[in-house]
Amino acid sequence: MPLYAVRMDVAIPDGVDPSVRDETIARERAYSQELQRTGEWKHIWRCAGQYSNISILDVADNERLHEILWGLPLFKWMTVDVTPLAKHPSDIH
Amino acid sequence: MPLYAVRMDVAIPDGVDPSVRDETIARERAYSQELQRTGEWKHIWRCAGQYSNISILDVADNERLHEILWGLPLFKWMTVDVTPLAKHPSDIH
Amino acid sequence: MPLYAVRMDVAIPDGVDPSVRDETIARERAYSQELQRTGEWKHIWRCAGQYSNISILDVADNERLHEILWGLPLFKWMTVDVTPLAKHPSDIH
Amino acid sequence: MPLYAVRMDVAIPDGVDPSVRDETIARERAYSQELQRTGEWKHIWRCAGQYSNISILDVADNERLHEILWGLPLFKWMTVDVTPLAKHPSDIH
Amino acid sequence: MPLYAVRMDVAIPDGVDPSVRDETIARERAYSQELQRTGEWKHIWRCAGQYSNISILDVADNERLHEILWGLPLFKWMTVDVTPLAKHPSDIH
Amino acid sequence: MPLYAVRMDVAIPDGVDPSVRDETIARERAYSQELQRTGEWKHIWRCAGQYSNISILDVADNERLHEILWGLPLFKWMTVDVTPLAKHPSDIH
Amino acid sequence: MPLYAVRMDVAIPDGVDPSVRDETIARERAYSQELQRTGEWKHIWRCAGQYSNISILDVADNERLHEILWGLPLFKWMTVDVTPLAKHPSDIH
Amino acid sequence: MPLYAVRMDVAIPDGVDPSVRDETIARERAYSQELQRTGEWKHIWRCAGQYSNISILDVADNERLHEILWGLPLFKWMTVDVTPLAKHPSDIH
Amino acid sequence: MPLYAVRMDVAIPDGVDPSVRDETIARERAYSQELQRTGEWKHIWRCAGQYSNISILDVADNERLHEILWGLPLFKWMTVDVTPLAKHPSDIH
Amino acid sequence: MPLYAVRMDVAIPDGVDPSVRDETIARERAYSQELQRTGEWKHIWRCAGQYSNISILDVADNERLHEILWGLPLFKWMTVDVTPLAKHPSDIH
Repeated sequence: MPLYAVRMDVAIPDGVDPSVRDETIARERAYSQELQRTGEWKHIWRCAGQYSNISILDVADNERLHEILWGLPLFKWMTVDVTPLAKHPSDIH
Repeated sequence: MPLYAVRMDVAIPDGVDPSVRDETIARERAYSQELQRTGEWKHIWRCAGQYSNISILDVADNERLHEILWGLPLFKWMTVDVTPLAKHPSDIH
Repeated sequence: MPLYAVRMDVAIPDGVDPSVRDETIARERAYSQELQRTGEWKHIWRCAGQYSNISILDVADNERLHEILWGLPLFKWMTVDVTPLAKHPSDIH
Repeated sequence: MPLYAVRMDVAIPDGVDPSVRDETIARERAYSQELQRTGEWKHIWRCAGQYSNISILDVADNERLHEILWGLPLFKWMTVDVTPLAKHPSDIH
Repeated sequence: MPLYAVRMDVAIPDGVDPSVRDETIARERAYSQELQRTGEWKHIWRCAGQYSNISILDVADNERLHEILWGLPLFKWMTVDVTPLAKHPSDIH
Repeated sequence: MPLYAVRMDVAIPDGVDPSVRDETIARERAYSQELQRTGEWKHIWRCAGQYSNISILDVADNERLHEILWGLPLFKWMTVDVTPLAKHPSDIH
Repeated sequence: MPLYAVRMDVAIPDGVDPSVRDETIARERAYSQELQRTGEWKHIWRCAGQYSNISILDVADNERLHEILWGLPLFKWMTVDVTPLAKHPSDIH
Repeated sequence: MPLYAVRMDVAIPDGVDPSVRDETIARERAYSQELQRTGEWKHIWRCAGQYSNISILDVADNERLHEILWGLPLFKWMTVDVTPLAKHPSDIH
Repeated sequence: MPLYAVRMDVAIPDGVDPSVRDETIARERAYSQELQRTGEWKHIWRCAGQYSNISILDVADNERLHEILWGLPLFKWMTVDVTPLAKHPSDIH
Repeated sequence: MPLYAVRMDVAIPDGVDPSVRDETIARERAYSQELQRTGEWKHIWRCAGQYSNISILDVADNERLHEILWGLPLFKWMTVDVTPLAKHPSDIH
């Protein structure tokens, strides 16, 4: 299935209520972990020193990629950058 | 061991002799594949539609990361962007 | 099938031999037109006043997208920007 | 008639009342669909993973293009980028 | 007829033969002046301190705009930026 | 008298009271039209699809240019870009 | 141990309560000074004329770097830029 | 004594109380004029059409430069860009 | 007379003959010094660590500014940035 | 004495003769090491994965900083970025 590299940068506005913030972050975690279990969210790494992650998604197509990202509880406070990936000729796997 | 996301964009100058170019690309491939076999070059993906890759390196430290990248046969024609990675709190692995 | 918006900006280096340039442009045209006939290169528009085009490709997946773009005769003189597309909720078609 | 590629990036401020937001989005959809039916808004695609679309408008001239975009219910929360298009010499249609 | 603001930045590569350069600049001038006489190239101003101009073109449509700009003798050494214009509601003319 | 190309991009903050907004826009229009009548604000065009204009000012000097722009009722919500202009050697007028 | 150059740019939103601001800055200072004493925060310099610092951190690995930066009391109002460092071949130390 | 070119761009947030704004601007003026009298703030020019100035400071060293800029009453609403200057070999003074 | 801040960044291409380079730099110096003597080139400072200068020109108008900058012997290898200046309300001179 | 953070990015043009390149790099090393011994070039670190360094210079003033950087054997192939530093209020040293 096609892979996509996705970088997500989070910026929660200063005025957001802390309980709303915490609840949204908790839902984000559950959402991501469920998709990791099904195998569609293949990797997630924290960018050291930043409220950002670099992820690899392994999904059916662009439609499914959009559906997953659009549904992120933190989506409204994120900047998202998508890079569609292909097999590299040097890849030994 | 620490992970690093590395994006490499390749731009071979127009005047390079084709045989030099091809030989350099062949050495690049062998170099990358040897490091994939030892496990330090964990992933390499082609960015679709671009002469670029996104790679994940799994190396001892910054020194070893630099040693590997500096030794790339295509290094002189590359722009390299490095992001040090940490474990993400949502990561289930 | 998934759609991708692709912008291609062409910059032919000043020293390229005119016959090489013209022959490459002719091959580019034939290459694009063949893919338009098969339906994978759905649209191509010239950006007014620029040596650039905006195209819509309708291909099986990221692998096929990369294969097509990598094979462009002008690829070595292009900057390519890829945006994976999904159906828009307002789209009536 | 002249074509224009238009990219619209939407950023709804955090403090907007949800009912105002939903009502504005609903009017935006109706507005776009009406113009799709008349043929002036020829294509609309979602950029995967982003609150953005890429559209092709087929309108009488710059005046009509501006009138349509200025009237978008979401215009005040959008960044809009316009590229006037011309026929590409490789286009087979 | 529709108006377009066009900014042209010229960068002649260092290795161009001076007689080729001068002859191209002379052809550029004649080309621009002919279009000024027909009324399609309405205004041309030099940006003070730069090898650049800001021009206003008054042409039938995007196709004609592209035809004119593509035909500029200096086109291959230019960066061109196009802004389609509409009537401003404060304009008294 | 010296000419200046000025691009003004307007971004009215979301929380501005609609009556304040409308009154400011009305004053802006009157202010611009008065200066058009005196001949100092020579041209104003809307950038199609954007809350922006490109204008040509024909004023005594930098001091007068600043006085006019600083006095714009919308100035506090504008980003302003100024390009001093000179006669172009190809200009036939 | 690996070194990292870190640039931190601080922008405290205008609406923050002065006592919250002052208390956060005081905690930031204590936090930084404790890590300077343990040797992990090796250098901190103010960028002249800016609410920014350039620091050198000397930490076990990317994980520890992230833990320290994520814990900064001012982190939510900072933009952070991380450059992993290696020994320079010209370094005499 | 060393010279520094400093560009200051001011952006007062929309919600600031007008009396606070006016009082801060008045203090800024007095602060700048006092330093102009002592000779440390050698030149100040308005950038035509912008809420910005370009200044030349003539101060003991980086420490003193920072002390002056950090103390600006408008500092919290400014973006500041610093260029350290040296004597130019073509300077006749 | 109007003032302009001008930043000039010089990049001499690698293949330029050293004697041509040196002769051009010598002519540049004489040209600048002559204009400093007439008073039109009021200040010139080197940006520390860069092949760049920041200058203040005091000239009749935009036309004269352009004439001076266009005539610089190094103009073809320069990037030039022009900021028209006005009197600052805090200026005590 | 004042400190400056300096980032140097090196890009040796493709056509440079290898012996010229190697001899220039050797001179650069000797030059840097001599200044490290006198204490003016306090720190030099390699940016991991890039032909770049971040250095701290501890010099008399802007003039001396410029003299050192201008004299770098690799200066003509470098992009240099200078940040003047001041003591940070959190610094315990």
